[in-house]
Amino acid sequence: MWNSPKVGILGGGQLGRMLVESANRLNIQCNVLDAENSPAKQISNHDAHVTGSFKERQAVRDLAQSCDVVTAEIEHVDTYALEEIASQVKVEPSWQAIRTIQNKFNQKEHLRKYGIPMADHRELVDSTPEALAKVGEELGYPLMLKSKTMAYDGRGNFRVNSPADIPEALEALKDRPLYAEKWAYFKTELAVMVVKTKDSVLSYPTVETVQEDSICKLVYAPARNVPEHINAKAQELARKAVAAFDGKGVFGVEMFLLEDDSLMLCELASRIHNSGHYTIEACPISQFDAHIRAILDLPIPPESLQPRQPSIMLNLIGGAAPDTHLQAAQAALAIPNAGIHLYSKGAAKPGRKMGHVTVTAATMREAEAHIQPLIDVVDNIRAQRSDIKTPAHKSAVSPPAPAIAVMMGSDSDLKTLVPGLKLLRDYFGIDPAVDITSAHRTPTFMAEYSARAAARGIKVIIAAAGGAAHLPGMAAAHTALPVIGVPVKGSSLDGVDSLYSIVQMPRGVPVATVGINNSINAALLAVRILGAFDPSIQRKVEAYAEAARSENMELKGTKMQELGWEKYFAQM
Amino acid sequence: MWNSPKVGILGGGQLGRMLVESANRLNIQCNVLDAENSPAKQISNHDAHVTGSFKERQAVRDLAQSCDVVTAEIEHVDTYALEEIASQVKVEPSWQAIRTIQNKFNQKEHLRKYGIPMADHRELVDSTPEALAKVGEELGYPLMLKSKTMAYDGRGNFRVNSPADIPEALEALKDRPLYAEKWAYFKTELAVMVVKTKDSVLSYPTVETVQEDSICKLVYAPARNVPEHINAKAQELARKAVAAFDGKGVFGVEMFLLEDDSLMLCELASRIHNSGHYTIEACPISQFDAHIRAILDLPIPPESLQPRQPSIMLNLIGGAAPDTHLQAAQAALAIPNAGIHLYSKGAAKPGRKMGHVTVTAATMREAEAHIQPLIDVVDNIRAQRSDIKTPAHKSAVSPPAPAIAVMMGSDSDLKTLVPGLKLLRDYFGIDPAVDITSAHRTPTFMAEYSARAAARGIKVIIAAAGGAAHLPGMAAAHTALPVIGVPVKGSSLDGVDSLYSIVQMPRGVPVATVGINNSINAALLAVRILGAFDPSIQRKVEAYAEAARSENMELKGTKMQELGWEKYFAQM
Repeated sequence: MWNSPKVGILGGGQLGRMLVESANRLNIQCNVLDAENSPAKQISNHDAHVTGSFKERQAVRDLAQSCDVVTAEIEHVDTYALEEIASQVKVEPSWQAIRTIQNKFNQKEHLRKYGIPMADHRELVDSTPEALAKVGEELGYPLMLKSKTMAYDGRGNFRVNSPADIPEALEALKDRPLYAEKWAYFKTELAVMVVKTKDSVLSYPTVETVQEDSICKLVYAPARNVPEHINAKAQELARKAVAAFDGKGVFGVEMFLLEDDSLMLCELASRIHNSGHYTIEACPISQFDAHIRAILDLPIPPESLQPRQPSIMLNLIGGAAPDTHLQAAQAALAIPNAGIHLYSKGAAKPGRKMGHVTVTAATMREAEAHIQPLIDVVDNIRAQRSDIKTPAHKSAVSPPAPAIAVMMGSDSDLKTLVPGLKLLRDYFGIDPAVDITSAHRTPTFMAEYSARAAARGIKVIIAAAGGAAHLPGMAAAHTALPVIGVPVKGSSLDGVDSLYSIVQMPRGVPVATVGINNSINAALLAVRILGAFDPSIQRKVEAYAEAARSENMELKGTKMQELGWEKYFAQM
Repeated sequence: MWNSPKVGILGGGQLGRMLVESANRLNIQCNVLDAENSPAKQISNHDAHVTGSFKERQAVRDLAQSCDVVTAEIEHVDTYALEEIASQVKVEPSWQAIRTIQNKFNQKEHLRKYGIPMADHRELVDSTPEALAKVGEELGYPLMLKSKTMAYDGRGNFRVNSPADIPEALEALKDRPLYAEKWAYFKTELAVMVVKTKDSVLSYPTVETVQEDSICKLVYAPARNVPEHINAKAQELARKAVAAFDGKGVFGVEMFLLEDDSLMLCELASRIHNSGHYTIEACPISQFDAHIRAILDLPIPPESLQPRQPSIMLNLIGGAAPDTHLQAAQAALAIPNAGIHLYSKGAAKPGRKMGHVTVTAATMREAEAHIQPLIDVVDNIRAQRSDIKTPAHKSAVSPPAPAIAVMMGSDSDLKTLVPGLKLLRDYFGIDPAVDITSAHRTPTFMAEYSARAAARGIKVIIAAAGGAAHLPGMAAAHTALPVIGVPVKGSSLDGVDSLYSIVQMPRGVPVATVGINNSINAALLAVRILGAFDPSIQRKVEAYAEAARSENMELKGTKMQELGWEKYFAQM
């Protein structure tokens, strides 16, 4: 390993800079090809950098002279230069992979051979209004007219809403090789970072990306409200797509999650990617660490790609003035759990990526709460820009994924549950999912509801029922989550019927039973369970007990001392 | 903030290098005073570094010319130079603080005024055998003879076991200003990193340090087997000690935990410290981030000093050959969840700190399991060194912190609990803490046991009791954890007495009650609770249910189909 391998990087922007950060920690020298004093060169103090552009053939040759492996922070490089140097140095990923990927139409034609699902698309061999109109008839409107090459961050794309837009679209993208793509109606944009090593294809978890002005604004890792099986399916799709290309390193795969929960590949990048920045804080090995290791054949333990905690990444974008984005950086300093990365690109242009912030927390909701004030600052900076007119993307806080589900067999049980529901909402600030799901009247719905609860993020179920109270036990039979049973007192037998029906479950299917009609205790038991793994909730449980103690000791006890038992009783 | 403050650093070793890493991310320029190409300069590419030594008065003056704030990665600097430049630039922490702290005797005399507990010590005004013998009579043997200045990593210390060692001790430390310290019999060495800002004193959690050959080998964060109140007390002591000095920045405080659980300050460093390296991976803001922010008056959200996960830091120390330590670095690449830091110091001398590795994991046990093979490699490298003779420190794995506590009121309840205990151990691989704690016979112990359970890492309590079964409810009254109650059937009333005593708790104190004698369901409920937050356990709960399903459907059901109910009944 440390017989001093030298890594050449085409491009010294922020991606190159973060690669150098990772290489520095392993004492691996990076020689960067870019302008003098580019961001990556600033943190790598030696004389072997090359001044020039990653599009100049001679500069690439010069870089190759001094390196053992050459890689790129961008796919828009001169792949003919890479092809030429590939006889002297290793090029990772392969020049063939980069050449295919940098032409988005060729990329898709290649991926189609591997059975990767994608939006339907057509090459526009002649850029004439007639040709595009014909494609429009085939794909329908709206459609996306796209440049095959040099397209990134929304540049090179034009939305065609109807045949009337055709002339403007062709003018906007004139002199570029074009193709058209059927419009994808997606509910969420997802991304997966894939690591291709000499003998395996690994992936980070599926993240949710939020785009604004056609560039990445926010990344939620893991994706919110995406069940585990879709997370797994998206990773599988991403690995399969990357496996279709030669060479080693990290690849970014963007995709759409459609309304029917199916997945469609959007595009693939042959490099570290903005949607993987969260890995620096969240994962033991970041995408930059992984890229350096992959191209040098160093080991990557798959566990190290698993995040320690949920995280949210927010880009800091250039505002109206060259230093406006620094207001956001300044605000980020006061955000709890925020890691700040400024790229040292000097004066900003509006819309340019100048830095990013990643917030980690024990839960996604906590991360959302921490970062919200910073999103407000960023939205405010954007609102002052004169180059854009559209309103800010509403960064919706994820609909609170409830941690507690409350089920009742009949609405007649609701009045028994109300004290517990009020305690959860008013004292603990927790909004549970509340549903009527009868074991006897809606047995199939009850079964599905229980079986899907864990995937929705539910951690504990409260089920109330009276009489031959089957609901808690049946729910427990359909889930691996803890189920709390509340026996409801009916019109006969004083609730003992419900109690026995709930508590005397057979071995193998437990129900955590509380006292008859005692929804308060069911609620408290649920928060104790959450609190065992969430210190802030546990502290509230302790505070609740302390309040009860002081009420008993200091209020009632003192009063009885003062009044004597007889007067106390008289005023009760 | 970003009107380009420039930070001058005295010293460009690994601590300076990691400071520069942090400053780079905020685009803050660091000018480093040290030899050409020192580790810190390698990752900071500009012309404003100063070549020379942090002990040269003129070099310090040159550095001050180009900076707004000057700080130091080491306390053994020329404080008279700092005093001189303090009129032109800010010096953080203050030269007065560094001057007092770099003389360990003065440091302790100063801290004594603030009531900081320390080992008894005596100045040795004359370094004569007679004077030391007199001090030995006062302090007893063994004692530690120490140099007041230039003492670090065990250099400048000599253990005096008896009066016979006095001549050798004085020879070893001749020409140095000396003091003697009473021997401290400690059970654990602890450390706390403290952040002193313009208006507050913050601290990271208390960590456990393991020394070998008088230098730091391992850091466990948080300290293992140290209860929460000692963790809090140690942080308080550390903050109080640091508050006794002027200036801003990060300070390292090392202390002893004695057999009686009292704390004693060992020594204090006016800088970022080896025992805080774990913060790079473990905390949203590392000690290096915090130092940069503190000296520049940038905000530090206190939440950001809380670790995301437990972690273990292991130093990579120079071995017999100049590159032996790279074997350990190579091995570290394959360790799950390991972050690797090499300091780029070139060829190693035996015993020199060349790098470090930090492993994070969801639990300390998991981190211990991950890092153990690397400790073995490090121990093996050390064993090959000819300059040391003592055996390696035995890095004991911490006793497993159980997640489930099982309490019973009397040993007569044990037989009821055995099926549940066996299920936990044999099917789920979980070893609970199992204790007899009677609500009636040992009420105080029961109360303390319950109250301390959460701090020990317990997530759920199972309590079994019969008759006037008070134990589950009383345990619930003393803890915020979920408590599962198992009613035990006694000699009369068929267990209904126990069931009612356990389930009919008053509002405010819930017990999760299972069926009479049903310890299997208590165990399953406990693993469902753990599984709600631990996917690997939840998958086992699902597998258990699936096994029960297939046993019922495929074994018993099929058999009854084959045999018919009559033959089936006959063979039951």
